[in-house]
Amino acid sequence: MSVKTINVNKDILGVNEALALNLKKTFENNKTFVINLMAAPGAGKTSTILRLIENLSGKFKMGVIEGDIASDVDSRKIQERNVDVVQINTDGACHLDANMITAACSGLGIEGKDLVIIENVGNLVCPAEFNLGENVKMMILSVPEGHDKPLKYPLMFTESQALLINKVDLTPYTDFNMEEFQKTVRAMNPDIKMFPVSAKTGEGFAPLVDWISERVKSVREIEGTSK
Amino acid sequence: MSVKTINVNKDILGVNEALALNLKKTFENNKTFVINLMAAPGAGKTSTILRLIENLSGKFKMGVIEGDIASDVDSRKIQERNVDVVQINTDGACHLDANMITAACSGLGIEGKDLVIIENVGNLVCPAEFNLGENVKMMILSVPEGHDKPLKYPLMFTESQALLINKVDLTPYTDFNMEEFQKTVRAMNPDIKMFPVSAKTGEGFAPLVDWISERVKSVREIEGTSK
Repeated sequence: MSVKTINVNKDILGVNEALALNLKKTFENNKTFVINLMAAPGAGKTSTILRLIENLSGKFKMGVIEGDIASDVDSRKIQERNVDVVQINTDGACHLDANMITAACSGLGIEGKDLVIIENVGNLVCPAEFNLGENVKMMILSVPEGHDKPLKYPLMFTESQALLINKVDLTPYTDFNMEEFQKTVRAMNPDIKMFPVSAKTGEGFAPLVDWISERVKSVREIEGTSK
Repeated sequence: MSVKTINVNKDILGVNEALALNLKKTFENNKTFVINLMAAPGAGKTSTILRLIENLSGKFKMGVIEGDIASDVDSRKIQERNVDVVQINTDGACHLDANMITAACSGLGIEGKDLVIIENVGNLVCPAEFNLGENVKMMILSVPEGHDKPLKYPLMFTESQALLINKVDLTPYTDFNMEEFQKTVRAMNPDIKMFPVSAKTGEGFAPLVDWISERVKSVREIEGTSK
């Protein structure tokens, strides 16, 4: 069956790319490593960030940009950990764009930050299309969502450099097939780095923390690369 | 902090409303009851539909429209149950619109169907904005997603007439607070009908099946209402 769709994305994406390039330069100039964290609602983005703060905020100057359609429940949790945070409420928009991040960066005070984590809007679709000038796109798929998701939401899986498989503590109570899942993902994106974790118990976070730490350090060691 | 957003939705939504009205008339003329089923990825839309087929396909002539960005894994599962199904692949679009449903209806053969379930793209945001001419918007929130979701994705919760709280079998292994969740939802949408269910075990489906059956029957008993 042929299905007609209306394409309005092209121009918006072009404008976004230009802004994202500017952001990338700003991050490089400040030697700030930036993670764009994406996932479906309830996959565990905020609890993952809280775990990363616990493990990384002693080593690095961190900041968080919280993207939500509405509410500031998540940013208040970050604030309690004494980490600088800016809340973006998109008022209906289903993803963050580079324009919003540009505004958020001046609110956050990007200068002097080693590591900034952007929590994107909970959505396994649209956020993958919008670059935010980040160093790394990191996604979360939680075990209860099921191992068939890569085939149904391919762009997120092919765009991401790192994939957290969260809520592994729930694996015994679900039909999730870890081997099949990883095989499917690997076929779509051979270079993606996968980390089975539980943000609830802390399981599996050590290799993830090492992986991020290495990258933060390498960005700090590079002499100003943007021209 | 003020955040600038680009609004491209207004015109698209106007065109969609006109097409949705036409669809609504088509459904009325055919005495077909239509459910628009929406949820985040992995909340259990397809397994809910399979349970509803098990309980309703003996009583009513059913059809299913499957919306996915890519793949036909779900529609093949429906087909195995001998229920007519049409697959829409949106090729990146994060929601179904009335244009796509119009095309799907002729593929499905809407005439003579008592009940059509539309499985929307897995997304807790955008699908809530696009009417599809349906009788009922039904959403699923699964227990592992967490009880804080209504505040973060308000439109879906205020637009829906029925809410399935799925995967209640996982409640003991999560922090999900059912009472707090229902209280929050009720405050946002006092008329919403809530059904705690497990599509995996079948728990809680009897009242949902009754609720749908009543509505299908009442639509069949009405003499042609559209003019």
